[in-house]
Amino acid sequence: MAKSIGHILKKKASLKLNGSLWVECEGESFFGPGPVELLKNIADTGSINKAAKKMKMSYKKAWKLIHALNEQTSRPVVIVQSGGDHGGGSVITDEAKDLITYHVRLRKRFKNFLEKETKGLSRTMK
Amino acid sequence: MAKSIGHILKKKASLKLNGSLWVECEGESFFGPGPVELLKNIADTGSINKAAKKMKMSYKKAWKLIHALNEQTSRPVVIVQSGGDHGGGSVITDEAKDLITYHVRLRKRFKNFLEKETKGLSRTMK
Repeated sequence: MAKSIGHILKKKASLKLNGSLWVECEGESFFGPGPVELLKNIADTGSINKAAKKMKMSYKKAWKLIHALNEQTSRPVVIVQSGGDHGGGSVITDEAKDLITYHVRLRKRFKNFLEKETKGLSRTMK
Repeated sequence: MAKSIGHILKKKASLKLNGSLWVECEGESFFGPGPVELLKNIADTGSINKAAKKMKMSYKKAWKLIHALNEQTSRPVVIVQSGGDHGGGSVITDEAKDLITYHVRLRKRFKNFLEKETKGLSRTMK
């Protein structure tokens, strides 16, 4: 059993372990919650512009994120249809859907890890 | 088996999952790698000032971190001995040692989680 820290604190009930995860490619951040949310919003709205607005993100930043993803994937994650984002709209590819699915499952496993560790935080020392 | 993403990327070998963890108390960050490193350095150097310098942290910030920890613990994590930090030096308490031990073990469990997930990243889809 791991040593806990609950015993040294004033307030035992309110302790929680939290954290963040991201995937690195060649040592650089490749994708995390932000880009995944962007892809989801593009799928929902059919537009990079609308997706970015929904997240209060600039169009430029959204494009940068998509470009960074496309740089690493063998096929693009977003396809801008004829007429551009303002005309024909944008769609996400199966590759983007796989990224989203992977991320949702990863977050669930991470949530389990955090919940287990949070329970351990208040445990008495052994 | 979880869906993987290795198949959609150009470079399969270089994918890695990374992340960060911190403990929250009442919804606010309570401690993470920074404060723990500071406590370790105070133990090593016997001085808040030297510990902060080692981390290229301002003395003010180091004090703030220690103060924030002390606010949440039933006993202080650092005791400034007579003469102050420049005179008698500072020592960490058993409570601080428990925080460090807990954190070292937590990081190991998190490292295992990240390594397991990193292996899964390049796995072919099922």
